[in-house]
Amino acid sequence: VDIADLTRNAVAVLPEGELERKLKLGRPLRVKLGIDVTAPDVTLGNGVPLRRMRAFQDEGHIGVLIVGDYTTRIGDPSGRKSERPIIDPEVIDADAQRYFESASKIIDPERTELRFNSEWLSKLDFAEILRLTRTTTVARILERDDFHKRFGANEPISISELLYPMMQAYDSVAVKADVELGGTDQTYNLLMGREVMAAYGLEPQVALTVAYLDSWDGTGMSASRRNYIGLSEAPEEQFGKAMRIPDSLLPQWYTLVMERDDVPADPLEAKLELARFIVRRSHGDEAATQAEDHFTRVVREGSAPEDVPEAVLAGDGEVHLPALLVEHLGVGSTSEARRLIAQGAVKVNGKVTSDLDLPRDALDGALVQAGKRRFMRFRAA
Amino acid sequence: VDIADLTRNAVAVLPEGELERKLKLGRPLRVKLGIDVTAPDVTLGNGVPLRRMRAFQDEGHIGVLIVGDYTTRIGDPSGRKSERPIIDPEVIDADAQRYFESASKIIDPERTELRFNSEWLSKLDFAEILRLTRTTTVARILERDDFHKRFGANEPISISELLYPMMQAYDSVAVKADVELGGTDQTYNLLMGREVMAAYGLEPQVALTVAYLDSWDGTGMSASRRNYIGLSEAPEEQFGKAMRIPDSLLPQWYTLVMERDDVPADPLEAKLELARFIVRRSHGDEAATQAEDHFTRVVREGSAPEDVPEAVLAGDGEVHLPALLVEHLGVGSTSEARRLIAQGAVKVNGKVTSDLDLPRDALDGALVQAGKRRFMRFRAA
Repeated sequence: VDIADLTRNAVAVLPEGELERKLKLGRPLRVKLGIDVTAPDVTLGNGVPLRRMRAFQDEGHIGVLIVGDYTTRIGDPSGRKSERPIIDPEVIDADAQRYFESASKIIDPERTELRFNSEWLSKLDFAEILRLTRTTTVARILERDDFHKRFGANEPISISELLYPMMQAYDSVAVKADVELGGTDQTYNLLMGREVMAAYGLEPQVALTVAYLDSWDGTGMSASRRNYIGLSEAPEEQFGKAMRIPDSLLPQWYTLVMERDDVPADPLEAKLELARFIVRRSHGDEAATQAEDHFTRVVREGSAPEDVPEAVLAGDGEVHLPALLVEHLGVGSTSEARRLIAQGAVKVNGKVTSDLDLPRDALDGALVQAGKRRFMRFRAA
Repeated sequence: VDIADLTRNAVAVLPEGELERKLKLGRPLRVKLGIDVTAPDVTLGNGVPLRRMRAFQDEGHIGVLIVGDYTTRIGDPSGRKSERPIIDPEVIDADAQRYFESASKIIDPERTELRFNSEWLSKLDFAEILRLTRTTTVARILERDDFHKRFGANEPISISELLYPMMQAYDSVAVKADVELGGTDQTYNLLMGREVMAAYGLEPQVALTVAYLDSWDGTGMSASRRNYIGLSEAPEEQFGKAMRIPDSLLPQWYTLVMERDDVPADPLEAKLELARFIVRRSHGDEAATQAEDHFTRVVREGSAPEDVPEAVLAGDGEVHLPALLVEHLGVGSTSEARRLIAQGAVKVNGKVTSDLDLPRDALDGALVQAGKRRFMRFRAA
């Protein structure tokens, strides 16, 4: 067994030596991952732990995806006293099916169990919940980073909120998890799963945490912010978005998405390879080729004419875009230029810009477009 | 309505003015009291809130005794991980019936509901428990005095323990309590009942707390310490124990037990009246007369001969009882005297003593008995 492959990109594998021991048990391990099926799509960020699940599956282990439908059905814990919103079980089932199909771009569906935690949580009575909640202490649960901060800041934490990590831990009991995967912010919950499993007389799971993927806006990729690439998004969308990431993210994306560390020296070539990988994994070779063609034709070259006029940027320091547009692109006034910028009608290298002042470097060699027809390429002096 | 009678001996009636308002509703109020039926007997101390229930019943209201059988059935919350001890429901039912009969020495059984909280708590699922636990916060529940101290002292508080006050509060929801009675240490729980009732859209209960009764050993009367008078104890036992209380407790016992404040000046007469009251309430007039006769004959006069010899205590400071027994009561040696003391065969004023050293004051005028036949009365020098 190549344990380096199983734990690639892992930030922590806890406790030390435990995974090695479990791998020697000679039986398929059960590798758990909790998923949020209410998100519109499975993202490349979700793909990071899913890749780990796949690595285990390739070694003969079992993936167990946990749909937290029980909590979804009873509503948001942060909701005040009000009645709980009842979410239609059929909607959750359809969402879960959609998630499973997207995730199957990465995991092996034949070696995956899709489980709904209402299966066991709906059967717990008060006596069993007391048994469950006897396994940890108030002090221990307040160690969790978010609770700790809120408690310290005298922000209210409802008792019900303390029960959510315990429910997640009980999921591990119910599916007899050997390994639980999660982001680094899940470390506490994954370790609580160990404690609860031990209290229930089960062998505690290994906690395997992975890093989060940063998106082009500099924050973590998230389905709730619109800064993600979905595993089931259209090939052209995936390709175009991948090409949009800043050069500085290339090493991280190569590591977490492609699981490679040989980033090509040329950023454009590196992004093209990355974009091809993403589309190919989700949609296959042909789709990747077509998406690249589309990108080259429409996005990269845009509808810019063959012979775009060039201009030299005079002066030094930041460039004031409205003034540039008036001087070189025939826009009538700086106020009209500001309006065009506000409307999203001004692009630099095919990307809409909302900045009024741009670094001179960013304009060296750049294609600037105002509205549909006015183009100019600039060179720094 | 004589509200002074309803709230007699109340330490607090919260919130202010609320009971007066509820009494004007013109319907029978539901007056809740949680009881512990696993105790061997209902004590005079339990009688204090039961008296309040009776006062309400005499005005046409309804008493609701809550048997916490659900928690009893699932075992002690402080119990570690181990399996829960299953307590036979029939045993709990029999205990509850016994409690009800004893309590009926004070309350009106015809106007009392005896309810078992398993009736509603066993039906709560996780969703409902989350709804319940959403009604309060960690900070709020840690305000409770015992939790506060333990949390401050870094002593572990299990999450399950936080759920117990919430269960008690939910009992108030289930029986739609208008008033909840309890000892002063229950103030927090009774007020939590108000919050939870409000969260469930019910009119919150009034919290009516009463003082605890001190026993002859200076601590609160408790069925788990053996310092109590049971409502169903034999008349002679009740009478003898009542006569044993220190004079200093007479005002408190007159107030809390007899609901009188005119304590007779002579302590002996005061105790006799108290003892008669206690036996009469539990067993009737005839039993009270017989118990008094028995006390006078056997306990007070004991089997001490008419003419007990007297001796004067020489010296000062504490008196070493073994030496006294050897010197004045014909015991062969101090080791034999120690053995007699250890066997409970030495009495001072009819009470078995296990102390080897006694304050000189306690022996002034005291009748000391060793074994069945040796008596001596002492006077301080």
